[in-house]
Amino acid sequence: MSQTPLLDSIDYPDKLRCLSKKQLPQVADELRRFLLESVGKTGGHFASNLGAVELTVALHYVYDTPDDKLVWDVGHQSYPHKILTGRRNRMDTMRQYGGLAGFPKRSESEYDAFGVGHSSTSIGAALGMALADKKLGNGRRSVAIIGDGAMTAGQAFEALNCAGDTDVDLLVILNDNEMSISPNVGALPKYLASNVVRDMHGVLSTLKAQSSKVLDKLPGAMEIAQKVENKIKTIASEAEHAKQSLTLFENFGFRYTGPVDGHDVGKLVDVLKDLRSRKGPQLLHVITKKGNGYKLAENDPVKYHAVANLAKETPQPQPNAAKPTYTQIFGKWLCDQAAADSRLLAITPAMREGSGLVAFEQQFPDRYFDVGIAEQHAVTFAGGLACGGFKPVVAIYSTFLQRAYDQLVHDIALQNLPVLFAVDRAGIVGADGPTHAGLYDLSFLRCIPNMVIAAPSDENECRLLLSTCYQTDAPSVVRYPRGSGCGSPVSDGLATVPLGKGLIRRNGEKTALIAFGSMVTPALKAAETLNATVADMRFVKPIDEDLIVRLAQTHDCIVTAEENAVQGGAGSAVLEVLAKHGIRKPVLLLGVDDVVTEHGDAQTILAGFDLTAETMEQRIRSWCAE
Amino acid sequence: MSQTPLLDSIDYPDKLRCLSKKQLPQVADELRRFLLESVGKTGGHFASNLGAVELTVALHYVYDTPDDKLVWDVGHQSYPHKILTGRRNRMDTMRQYGGLAGFPKRSESEYDAFGVGHSSTSIGAALGMALADKKLGNGRRSVAIIGDGAMTAGQAFEALNCAGDTDVDLLVILNDNEMSISPNVGALPKYLASNVVRDMHGVLSTLKAQSSKVLDKLPGAMEIAQKVENKIKTIASEAEHAKQSLTLFENFGFRYTGPVDGHDVGKLVDVLKDLRSRKGPQLLHVITKKGNGYKLAENDPVKYHAVANLAKETPQPQPNAAKPTYTQIFGKWLCDQAAADSRLLAITPAMREGSGLVAFEQQFPDRYFDVGIAEQHAVTFAGGLACGGFKPVVAIYSTFLQRAYDQLVHDIALQNLPVLFAVDRAGIVGADGPTHAGLYDLSFLRCIPNMVIAAPSDENECRLLLSTCYQTDAPSVVRYPRGSGCGSPVSDGLATVPLGKGLIRRNGEKTALIAFGSMVTPALKAAETLNATVADMRFVKPIDEDLIVRLAQTHDCIVTAEENAVQGGAGSAVLEVLAKHGIRKPVLLLGVDDVVTEHGDAQTILAGFDLTAETMEQRIRSWCAE
Repeated sequence: MSQTPLLDSIDYPDKLRCLSKKQLPQVADELRRFLLESVGKTGGHFASNLGAVELTVALHYVYDTPDDKLVWDVGHQSYPHKILTGRRNRMDTMRQYGGLAGFPKRSESEYDAFGVGHSSTSIGAALGMALADKKLGNGRRSVAIIGDGAMTAGQAFEALNCAGDTDVDLLVILNDNEMSISPNVGALPKYLASNVVRDMHGVLSTLKAQSSKVLDKLPGAMEIAQKVENKIKTIASEAEHAKQSLTLFENFGFRYTGPVDGHDVGKLVDVLKDLRSRKGPQLLHVITKKGNGYKLAENDPVKYHAVANLAKETPQPQPNAAKPTYTQIFGKWLCDQAAADSRLLAITPAMREGSGLVAFEQQFPDRYFDVGIAEQHAVTFAGGLACGGFKPVVAIYSTFLQRAYDQLVHDIALQNLPVLFAVDRAGIVGADGPTHAGLYDLSFLRCIPNMVIAAPSDENECRLLLSTCYQTDAPSVVRYPRGSGCGSPVSDGLATVPLGKGLIRRNGEKTALIAFGSMVTPALKAAETLNATVADMRFVKPIDEDLIVRLAQTHDCIVTAEENAVQGGAGSAVLEVLAKHGIRKPVLLLGVDDVVTEHGDAQTILAGFDLTAETMEQRIRSWCAE
Repeated sequence: MSQTPLLDSIDYPDKLRCLSKKQLPQVADELRRFLLESVGKTGGHFASNLGAVELTVALHYVYDTPDDKLVWDVGHQSYPHKILTGRRNRMDTMRQYGGLAGFPKRSESEYDAFGVGHSSTSIGAALGMALADKKLGNGRRSVAIIGDGAMTAGQAFEALNCAGDTDVDLLVILNDNEMSISPNVGALPKYLASNVVRDMHGVLSTLKAQSSKVLDKLPGAMEIAQKVENKIKTIASEAEHAKQSLTLFENFGFRYTGPVDGHDVGKLVDVLKDLRSRKGPQLLHVITKKGNGYKLAENDPVKYHAVANLAKETPQPQPNAAKPTYTQIFGKWLCDQAAADSRLLAITPAMREGSGLVAFEQQFPDRYFDVGIAEQHAVTFAGGLACGGFKPVVAIYSTFLQRAYDQLVHDIALQNLPVLFAVDRAGIVGADGPTHAGLYDLSFLRCIPNMVIAAPSDENECRLLLSTCYQTDAPSVVRYPRGSGCGSPVSDGLATVPLGKGLIRRNGEKTALIAFGSMVTPALKAAETLNATVADMRFVKPIDEDLIVRLAQTHDCIVTAEENAVQGGAGSAVLEVLAKHGIRKPVLLLGVDDVVTEHGDAQTILAGFDLTAETMEQRIRSWCAE
């Protein structure tokens, strides 16, 4: 017999809405159990989802989805939403190739109102939807559900500032995981539960009561008491006004409700019903607990062992001792370089673990800066530090560097400041899918003057290129993929290589494979049967023109390979060099060719673009045969 | 005899610091007069500079520049700063080729602590500098001077949020031009001047005084009065606490001072002296008046007529009736398209005039959205509107689109939402210089899947391509340069052209000029004496592969021309097409080749890159002769 009978009856939210309110706690329980039992094994952002169970049930119960729109910020917490919206039976395909996406995705379901993955977009997107519905007069509602961490990004503030200026019926739910926004900002809503206004009313009552007892028999005293009372009334009114206008969200024009226990589904339904009928921008402050209900698993470790194994947030690629990840290579280099150069400071926009900065923070706590989810600030701040004589290293994912693009151009590159960007997750990222793929950095960086761009082909190269770029004293980027490379032994020390020079890794004939970064290893394999020459270019900018010219002059044809968009990427740079030198040879450009990639196993996806050894070899063979 | 004797004696701020405080008003007067008489004729952001005169004098008087750092946000207000820091005699070269930059620029002066141009970077940059100095223990101070408008950008909030978490000695000066941030946010600082706390103390005194007069003779009354007094003291203390913690800036950990009259130089000196010695992040709220002192000019129009002619902010390219600017072409198209399609909504990040939206706002006020300086939000908001069934048009400068790059990728392109970006100022912008040049958009957009990118060659083409892109229902960009084109008559109507198809504008032989956007006109001129073929490609993406192949097959060599970086730009797209089709021909790529451009006359700068008709012809001739 099913352990989740009620949940099983809910294919879509309209079934949920047929239930009585008092059945909802059972739905939530079953949903949580389903998450733990069936979904836990897929890993991913598990605790966020456990924390959002009751909120999700309440939202779909009260709001008329999909006509009403739920916009989940980042989307780490959207599994319960997916389960309730027709995807329960496919949850075991989560984040796998051809399966459900790990984030809301418009093309996957009409219930996914907005595709997400990067943080802090939900308020702006929901505001757009709310405004559209207002213009259409269809009475539909929009809700943004945003965590406290995502509130630190400037974009969230921009959206709050604009939403507050409108009269749209927008609900923003601040899902506060008991971690608060920042101590100051987070302190504010709690302040609302404090006593100022209540005490104001208290003092009025006291004064009035005591006046009548003592003062009313005294000539003139009543008059004085009345004056004092009036004065206090004025103050109370002003304080009330102050309270209304001075909370952070109310400063932005939102009406604040909360805090509400995010695990009390009945209470949530009541509050949401009230809010759904209210006019104007509303903010609901919900307190939830990440991983709520996880004790189930703790109490029954045998039954839930799969879950217990996967309980960590955002599981990192599992390294082994022999084959550390690029992230780890970077982390170790950073500590060693910092020990050698006191000018080194490291900056992360809320990615300490993901970017490999845990050891650095421990060893150099006063040289470590986590600025929160604030990529723009991270980069301009680095520029300021560089002006002050330091050498900042910004550790950032390729996809998140997109968010600081203007700052990289305007504040770093145009001023030629020595900031090193350690760009992780450059290329296909696998299960996280297209929102997290780092496929554009070579194109969007290559056009910027003064930039040095390096792409290491293996772990040892990564360390060499980090040292080299760091020591160039120019704006520079070292971009490396998720996970590990071929497992090359990594030397100690801080040796450098010549700037802008590549090297030939294999001598062959007829075909020259000009490979960048992660593509050197498959190129070397592909070259074996092709007997092709393989160059590891090391640098995308400045690119080794001499080497390209030499290879072109001594080979019949050229193949470039990169884990980046073909358009404007490293292969394109090779074409520019050949054109400049008047060299005309057949060139095949391998890379990600102008499509939105899928999520799933990285090797599967790379194979689809002929970027694995075998597919690369086949593609080159068929190209040569044309 | 000099009309500005004191100012003449001040080559650098150390001379200013030798004066007595009471001489400073005269310095300010002379500085303002100098601005009006000598600098007014250069135009530019005149009123901002008049508003910042006293503040600039006071800052350089109190702070030990250049060791102490002044970071001017945007930099529109930095002329007085330039005058006081060794550049008085070069102010008449302002914004001209080879002359002073219109913004602070590190390579121009050691007093320019950080190069600016785009808004909202000052707090983050100054925080970096303050942190650097703190680590060095050199006692130097950093000051960010930011206007109320710039506070609406998310980056400013990110920086405030981070700065408040530190214990650095950073001063942020909010230069409030009596225009406020937004009504709500701007209301907050003013609230501090209100009466709650003062009244609290007032009521205590009243109560005490009246208690002694009336109550102290009554048994028990004094006790009650004491109780009431204590209660009120508690409330007063809580209100004081509330005041301290609840102001917007204090929420972020800043100590607030102000508001202070920004035209009282003596008062400013006193306040700054006090602030310079304080620990931790400080915010000074200064009220200034844009264009303060401009009455001088009004009262003596003959003497100041040059100024009076140039009094407008950010002068637009002067159009004439026969030759409207691209901005105007866009503005008119927008109104016409909006009249024909009620789904059209227009969004600007605080660039109504610059982007040509004045008429649209008048005709369609409820379809017009100025989101403030908030490019990120502008784009995601557009995504939300598109999800809601509308067709948003985002009017934005190329250089500011950089600030919404991730939103364009993540929220628009990956979801294939029908948002049209009308990208103005694409290419060399002239006097505003490299921070405002739009030289990277073709490179950073071309790599993004789903994007349609059009570059109109003249005014009529601009209208055609706007209609075409709008009606494609895909994410699309029409990029056009500052100013006007060749002056082609613009047809009415909303006709479209075939998507992704170029056309041959001149038939010649041997050389094919494949020109993009603004380069078609000079290419046509250059082609006359070369007898070259000229193609107007219209689209950079999808690019007309058939046309390129045809041209390559029928000509000996190919020249591409674009007003964009060569690296990854449109010429690079042509190379990719040729490689794909196995066509090997000599190709010359003309564009801006990997340097930070200068400010000054656009034609002079374009000539330096062989992008004017004459230089293009010469370059092609010498290339063919190689």
